[in-house]
Amino acid sequence: MESELAGKVLEGNILAAARLIGEIENEMPNAFEELNSLYPHTGRAGIVGITGAPGVGKSTLIDSLIGIFRKQGMTVGVIAIDPTSPFSGGAILGDRIRMQQHNLDKGVFIRSLATRGWAGGLSKATISTIHVMDAMGKDIILVETVGAGQAEIDIVRVADTAVVILTPEVGDEIQVMKAGILEAADIFVINKADRGGADNLKRVLEVMLGMKAYLPGEWKPAIILTEAIFNNGIEELADEIRRHKEFLTSSGELERRRKERARLELMVAIEGFLKNYIYQRIDKGDYLEKLIDSLVKRKTNPHSAALKIINRFSKQL
Amino acid sequence: MESELAGKVLEGNILAAARLIGEIENEMPNAFEELNSLYPHTGRAGIVGITGAPGVGKSTLIDSLIGIFRKQGMTVGVIAIDPTSPFSGGAILGDRIRMQQHNLDKGVFIRSLATRGWAGGLSKATISTIHVMDAMGKDIILVETVGAGQAEIDIVRVADTAVVILTPEVGDEIQVMKAGILEAADIFVINKADRGGADNLKRVLEVMLGMKAYLPGEWKPAIILTEAIFNNGIEELADEIRRHKEFLTSSGELERRRKERARLELMVAIEGFLKNYIYQRIDKGDYLEKLIDSLVKRKTNPHSAALKIINRFSKQL
Repeated sequence: MESELAGKVLEGNILAAARLIGEIENEMPNAFEELNSLYPHTGRAGIVGITGAPGVGKSTLIDSLIGIFRKQGMTVGVIAIDPTSPFSGGAILGDRIRMQQHNLDKGVFIRSLATRGWAGGLSKATISTIHVMDAMGKDIILVETVGAGQAEIDIVRVADTAVVILTPEVGDEIQVMKAGILEAADIFVINKADRGGADNLKRVLEVMLGMKAYLPGEWKPAIILTEAIFNNGIEELADEIRRHKEFLTSSGELERRRKERARLELMVAIEGFLKNYIYQRIDKGDYLEKLIDSLVKRKTNPHSAALKIINRFSKQL
Repeated sequence: MESELAGKVLEGNILAAARLIGEIENEMPNAFEELNSLYPHTGRAGIVGITGAPGVGKSTLIDSLIGIFRKQGMTVGVIAIDPTSPFSGGAILGDRIRMQQHNLDKGVFIRSLATRGWAGGLSKATISTIHVMDAMGKDIILVETVGAGQAEIDIVRVADTAVVILTPEVGDEIQVMKAGILEAADIFVINKADRGGADNLKRVLEVMLGMKAYLPGEWKPAIILTEAIFNNGIEELADEIRRHKEFLTSSGELERRRKERARLELMVAIEGFLKNYIYQRIDKGDYLEKLIDSLVKRKTNPHSAALKIINRFSKQL
């Protein structure tokens, strides 16, 4: 039985979805229950992770992609994981506003998620937000990240399709990619392909991909050249995303990835429970403060102190 | 009673320290014991977090800083947190090699830490590596991060002194900073100050800092202009780091920050214990796989599944 809020989300109500996502971000207890009741209605949307260093043109590219998906009759959700400081609101805001040209289109729902709180908290909010958009009935959900944090990598890894965007000004751009991001790519995009060095970067990627021995029937990432700002190459990218989705379904890989996503989500949920449980109890009384004092004075060590706390609280679990 | 390895680390033996750090990275069980026996000998080094987006010149700046600290008779440890993919080894390697001009100097110990594994794993390895360098007798430990992941932010937050490097080509550079990084800065550096826009960026920072009401006796971050590649401004930066250290000691802020560090480390240790405990047990048998199947088929939800697992295993804790 759904609550009123969950019921409205299932009807595609944008205000209800926005409210629920807000509650998820703020880790409000009732958000879990709402999510639980939405969960049986999820699993239909295609999830596309789009990652790249700052400045490669992610927002512009997503903006163009939305236009194409909409023309094809699909509804679109976008989750922008926003690593900015309040101090730099201006630069990012510009990006968002650019993307918001689709804001009046009811078939498009865009949300930025702030990155804050405990490590791992991001994954939780992101996966939950994917579920909300999925339950709303969005056909495709684009998750935009800068690809620099572990949580963001996990998201790309469990997307149905992982798109990695590079630009010819290599070096710094690639540096920001964490180990595992390039390896997780299903599709490479070289954006700003009009700039010198695009062909060279393409060759580097081809060599890199050539080093891997692909099994028959295995997916080999394509390399798409785009100029997002002029809408060039974007249809090709949308085609490739569709082609990859077909591959996922026909090969059984979709099932495997969805299992991986379920596994990750379960692990994140377990961690969340345990942390909340211990930290809520730990904060009461001055037991923790005394232990920290002993640490600062080097009378104990973190390893032993952690064991003490776990032994103290595990009995009450 | 120290082990042989810990004993050698305490004597400043570089090979022993490198071996222990390797064991920490690989989460080998004996590494904890070694760390436990080193812990009473830590707490003497000054910890300076240095963060900035890729391309701002962190490595060059640290390279110059090392030279100045060495001239002042201090021994230096450097921990470079390396977010790169194996595919982009080249670009980063160049950076590291540049820094390694101090490699023949026994008073300098540089280690790169790969960012991998579970979220939070980075903090654990980083804090443990700080302890190893501290126990080795390094006077000052520089921790270099790109400032984009939550784990890196935590590190900057618990450093004695947090240095944030920006360049005049703002926008993208600032974008990569996560919320909380700029707020955590004790010292701002505008590197590549010879480029147009440096004065403008300085004014922006001054306005930003001017918005905060500083209490009497509170530290107000300085803004240092540098051209690291020409060694310009680096002595001023080293002076400012020393001035901040004096402020920390005289104001009692050092004690507070060290408490924060102990608290963070304790939390990370608790999380690590709990995760290891549950995941080791969970992986045995097909209980987990069946639960994941139910999730994929939407017969249960992650929240309920996590609770089931916790109830199942908590009794054995």
